[in-house]
Amino acid sequence: MGNSLGKLFTITSFGESHGRCIGIIIDGCPAGLPVSEKDIQREVDRRKPTSPIATTRAEEEKVEILSGVFNGHTTGAPISLLIWNKDVDSSEYEKMRFLLRPGHADYTAFVKYGGFNDFRGGGRFSGRITATFVMAGAIARKLLDLISVEVLAHTVEIGGIKAKPKKVDEIRKVDQNLLKCADPEAAKEMLKAIEKAKEEGDSVGGIIEGIALNVPVGLGEPVFTALDGELAKALFAIPAVKGVEFGSGFSAARKRGSENNDPFTIKDGKLVAVTNNAGGILGGISSGMPIVARVAVKPTSSIAKKQETVNIKTMESTTLEVRGRHDACIVPRAVPAVEAMMAVTLCDFALRAGLIPRVIK
Amino acid sequence: MGNSLGKLFTITSFGESHGRCIGIIIDGCPAGLPVSEKDIQREVDRRKPTSPIATTRAEEEKVEILSGVFNGHTTGAPISLLIWNKDVDSSEYEKMRFLLRPGHADYTAFVKYGGFNDFRGGGRFSGRITATFVMAGAIARKLLDLISVEVLAHTVEIGGIKAKPKKVDEIRKVDQNLLKCADPEAAKEMLKAIEKAKEEGDSVGGIIEGIALNVPVGLGEPVFTALDGELAKALFAIPAVKGVEFGSGFSAARKRGSENNDPFTIKDGKLVAVTNNAGGILGGISSGMPIVARVAVKPTSSIAKKQETVNIKTMESTTLEVRGRHDACIVPRAVPAVEAMMAVTLCDFALRAGLIPRVIK
Amino acid sequence: MGNSLGKLFTITSFGESHGRCIGIIIDGCPAGLPVSEKDIQREVDRRKPTSPIATTRAEEEKVEILSGVFNGHTTGAPISLLIWNKDVDSSEYEKMRFLLRPGHADYTAFVKYGGFNDFRGGGRFSGRITATFVMAGAIARKLLDLISVEVLAHTVEIGGIKAKPKKVDEIRKVDQNLLKCADPEAAKEMLKAIEKAKEEGDSVGGIIEGIALNVPVGLGEPVFTALDGELAKALFAIPAVKGVEFGSGFSAARKRGSENNDPFTIKDGKLVAVTNNAGGILGGISSGMPIVARVAVKPTSSIAKKQETVNIKTMESTTLEVRGRHDACIVPRAVPAVEAMMAVTLCDFALRAGLIPRVIK
Amino acid sequence: MGNSLGKLFTITSFGESHGRCIGIIIDGCPAGLPVSEKDIQREVDRRKPTSPIATTRAEEEKVEILSGVFNGHTTGAPISLLIWNKDVDSSEYEKMRFLLRPGHADYTAFVKYGGFNDFRGGGRFSGRITATFVMAGAIARKLLDLISVEVLAHTVEIGGIKAKPKKVDEIRKVDQNLLKCADPEAAKEMLKAIEKAKEEGDSVGGIIEGIALNVPVGLGEPVFTALDGELAKALFAIPAVKGVEFGSGFSAARKRGSENNDPFTIKDGKLVAVTNNAGGILGGISSGMPIVARVAVKPTSSIAKKQETVNIKTMESTTLEVRGRHDACIVPRAVPAVEAMMAVTLCDFALRAGLIPRVIK
Repeated sequence: MGNSLGKLFTITSFGESHGRCIGIIIDGCPAGLPVSEKDIQREVDRRKPTSPIATTRAEEEKVEILSGVFNGHTTGAPISLLIWNKDVDSSEYEKMRFLLRPGHADYTAFVKYGGFNDFRGGGRFSGRITATFVMAGAIARKLLDLISVEVLAHTVEIGGIKAKPKKVDEIRKVDQNLLKCADPEAAKEMLKAIEKAKEEGDSVGGIIEGIALNVPVGLGEPVFTALDGELAKALFAIPAVKGVEFGSGFSAARKRGSENNDPFTIKDGKLVAVTNNAGGILGGISSGMPIVARVAVKPTSSIAKKQETVNIKTMESTTLEVRGRHDACIVPRAVPAVEAMMAVTLCDFALRAGLIPRVIK
Repeated sequence: MGNSLGKLFTITSFGESHGRCIGIIIDGCPAGLPVSEKDIQREVDRRKPTSPIATTRAEEEKVEILSGVFNGHTTGAPISLLIWNKDVDSSEYEKMRFLLRPGHADYTAFVKYGGFNDFRGGGRFSGRITATFVMAGAIARKLLDLISVEVLAHTVEIGGIKAKPKKVDEIRKVDQNLLKCADPEAAKEMLKAIEKAKEEGDSVGGIIEGIALNVPVGLGEPVFTALDGELAKALFAIPAVKGVEFGSGFSAARKRGSENNDPFTIKDGKLVAVTNNAGGILGGISSGMPIVARVAVKPTSSIAKKQETVNIKTMESTTLEVRGRHDACIVPRAVPAVEAMMAVTLCDFALRAGLIPRVIK
Repeated sequence: MGNSLGKLFTITSFGESHGRCIGIIIDGCPAGLPVSEKDIQREVDRRKPTSPIATTRAEEEKVEILSGVFNGHTTGAPISLLIWNKDVDSSEYEKMRFLLRPGHADYTAFVKYGGFNDFRGGGRFSGRITATFVMAGAIARKLLDLISVEVLAHTVEIGGIKAKPKKVDEIRKVDQNLLKCADPEAAKEMLKAIEKAKEEGDSVGGIIEGIALNVPVGLGEPVFTALDGELAKALFAIPAVKGVEFGSGFSAARKRGSENNDPFTIKDGKLVAVTNNAGGILGGISSGMPIVARVAVKPTSSIAKKQETVNIKTMESTTLEVRGRHDACIVPRAVPAVEAMMAVTLCDFALRAGLIPRVIK
Repeated sequence: MGNSLGKLFTITSFGESHGRCIGIIIDGCPAGLPVSEKDIQREVDRRKPTSPIATTRAEEEKVEILSGVFNGHTTGAPISLLIWNKDVDSSEYEKMRFLLRPGHADYTAFVKYGGFNDFRGGGRFSGRITATFVMAGAIARKLLDLISVEVLAHTVEIGGIKAKPKKVDEIRKVDQNLLKCADPEAAKEMLKAIEKAKEEGDSVGGIIEGIALNVPVGLGEPVFTALDGELAKALFAIPAVKGVEFGSGFSAARKRGSENNDPFTIKDGKLVAVTNNAGGILGGISSGMPIVARVAVKPTSSIAKKQETVNIKTMESTTLEVRGRHDACIVPRAVPAVEAMMAVTLCDFALRAGLIPRVIK
């Protein structure tokens, strides 16, 4: 239950970290969109682990299109995309099966599914599942391209180190950077923070900013289908996300109305807001200004440090040192997932608004 | 579009601030629940404006049950709840119809609905609509009572003044306090801040914390129907909300894994987490610990201070001083709405999990 | 649960036969559509009881618009439409409360809702609820008008008497006829059959044909959202419907493929089907030919004749003579409901296909 | 769009007749259900073509479980089931690509998808897709087993030859019979009718009856989620279905109320209906009596006989003789699909009613 998202552009995720495969079905993509496995592969590759800060699990993560694409174009039928799991090593997980890893879903999954859940590598709760989001995002982005909507994300904070605000042009180049941070100076410090945490058997978190440019005015609905609400819901699908804010976000709580309101003015004959504390959303509806979401990512739960926990089988207190292959900081790898979830959500709203034709010509 | 929420406990909101009425349909409430207008009225009254800090609009806000309740019990049929609008004064709105109020949805609504939207008092975008959320929340809370789930909310920050952490017992009494703040010392300072802002024709924002106690382990679904995601979506339905975080939230981004992970232990024979940085949700599923959400509320957009804006009809820059009757700080009045949206969401998940019977006996 | 229908054009029905009111919320109607209470009243009046064959319950059935319409146009917000119940006489129902009326939902409702259901006049299961469908249909038809889609329905059989096939022009005039039958000769015989049944304390059923003209090619989706499937689902919402077929329907089961297939040809430069055994739907998608649905309506369950039944309280066998005010044949009054449910469904699909703009200008 | 069905037990179908595979995702299956590929294979094999009346396409149709099952039990995660297409011969389809096959979705698909649809073997519109329904049905039936609900279907008419009414015990054995007909005498005649049609390059249709036994009272919701409405919608997903009726169905239109109403009585201390003209559904809610649905299946559209048609590319009239490998009567092969769609629908309602636990122990 709960593995589908979207109304007219509906994605259904499946698969487990150490099962046979992970995949996604995209239902509602207009026909006629040129799509190749290469297009999707490119996006998936962006979330690959990048040493020295990441897991050593060496998944090729080769994308396969199983349906919905014919002669290089979408057909209007459900698009199924799949990645076979290959470099699976579940030995550590078998050993610590009943030792609940703090910060993970081991406990909640065990209770909810009566112990039947596939616990290996976190199973359905693994960050690896976000590769399926990225596959869907790749299709969504191609559709958004048609109406010139661009979705970007970048690391703005890791381990307490904040990146300086950067222009969109620099943010567009974040893939050149291990940490997907547009501020190279900050990125160096962030890397040090990650390496230090790693050495100490620990991990660090951070903040990702997602930006959608050129979104037309009018996407989103009051009250229960607000664009911010739907974006937030989509972003909370990414494991480790603990907070989502738009525009001035939590800092708005400390501002006066006169500071936080974005005055309107006319610029080059067009109505614009002078500032963007609203983060591009007013009354749950896109305002034409850039949509700006910030996402808090908690430090990786898997750490080598000894932790207090419980053996769920024996119900005894014990300690645990999580081995296996983990990222000391997952923030950079979550950047493409943030983009993907924003793209998927915006694409659905653009279809609802009739902005993307049902057949692409 | 978009005015319904929930899967098995579905609410559909309707009405406008200055129209004939506001109301809500609750579909999926089990039969046999004792419900009276008084029960719902009590909750609605909690969000009434409280001078000296609030609007002078003096709505009686009398709740009427139009359907779904028979002989004092729910029937299993849709429950429709309605409040007639009475003290409506739209004169100011008619005058400034085309002057876009910064921070409001005037612009986005105008474009989205081609100028056909009922602009009076913000129409469908008014905070007044949250009274319909509160009505639905009143029913949801009665259902949650049956499984001993309690939902609370309280003001934790206004105008930059933070309340000290308080025990649940004190939070339960926040209605005794104008600001719905459990820390009376802080409340005094908050009130001063609001009054000062008001004198200056300005407004302040703040933060509300919502808490759900005794939620059983297992509510919520990975990945796209995570409990945190659904709660966030529900909370963003409240106008003025700009951010939602759970547990350690954005501060998790600055923590080490070893600090942020909540160790498990056995206490009185039961498994518990030693801390609650997760805010009661692990992997999108309730963990049995208190669910703790914090919601950033922006300062009221309607301010008396002169603001730069545009006349959308003439497309000329101009200035605006928003008259009418407004709250200089809406945080206290949003507290019941936070409770309501949390209750509605949890109730839906409890029904999905089969925890609440379809007939109450 | 289950009182909403539609994806982009969503209707939510509420109210009971003998409660305070019946009503419907329409969410997703584009803004700018001219709508008045009179427009909707006209449609509702078409299902009024028409002596001598119908109930003597004399409801004025006055439509009120509670929200979503401003200055004579839809606003894009939910439209709520309400009819107050006035001529309610529940005395008979109170008396026979525990006597299950055969053919009615008394038994299933009693068990499902644990006896808490509003049993008066059938409560939520009353044919009267179809007045709410008709209100929604009135809005849907106005939207379909914009794309020249016309929805008609007429009585084609009552009490075993079949109407002769008639041209669309004659079907358009069925309101001139008590029985909403386009064949006046057959109508006379039908009336006799109804009167005879009534005299004998009995009732008769019949068949209604719904037709949608000028539906563009392409509405509907394979496989689980087929246009025929969705229309059928919508039509089964009408109490007393026991079967739905499209085009040649059940008679297709007795045909050869060579007879049942509709050959294609070119006529006036346009592709058309020579016959319409498909009833305008191929592969779950509208084909541009008229959509033709036939709906089996069972004889009214409320009959004066003595019937064997059970007292659900005492669990003893007994007999029952249903008094109260009933139609000896509800077929004519169900005709507008068939039109309404077809219109609502087609309108939703037209919106999904982007054929109706989100703002009507 | 539209390839998902169900609320708590949600299935999402994908794949094309001549693409790489066909498959289905089942989301919402409780954890702990023992499931093996063999279990599902058994059901899929029941719809295999059976010479001499069927296609010669010799698909092995080997079911693979890709996710959601671990150590022989469901995990609570989405179950993905897949069949690779192997014996694909698309040559005939390439040749006649632009020749619209009467009775097929070639025309509607071409227009809807702008010619981008995978036309080979009917693509997404092929009867082959029902194998994915059957896979989902296999899981649904296992869940229904837990609450002793049994779903059966059998051929009751082919080519105008009607089977005699048979007892449930005989209906349970229909797999022993080429035509899945419980009346062996009628089956012989049906076979002759099919063979005769085949010799003449033609095809025949028929009627399937689906039966659900032991369904508890109370499944289904008035008004827009009626059990009959949802079953009908599900059954119309099967290509070639042109009508669905319950209980006395269309014949109810010709009955008196006194004949068609099912009297209630007490039998062995339990309330039962004396007859079952309602087909087990009253007011959209299951009544505890057997649910009986009859489904009209049109004659196979693919026939060898010469047919008039149009070349959609040149827009010229022409003729067509459909070669390729086809069933002269698909009724027997649709029997498992009818069972599957009924099982899937009932399973969803049973979950909504909380009758099946979320963890199977």
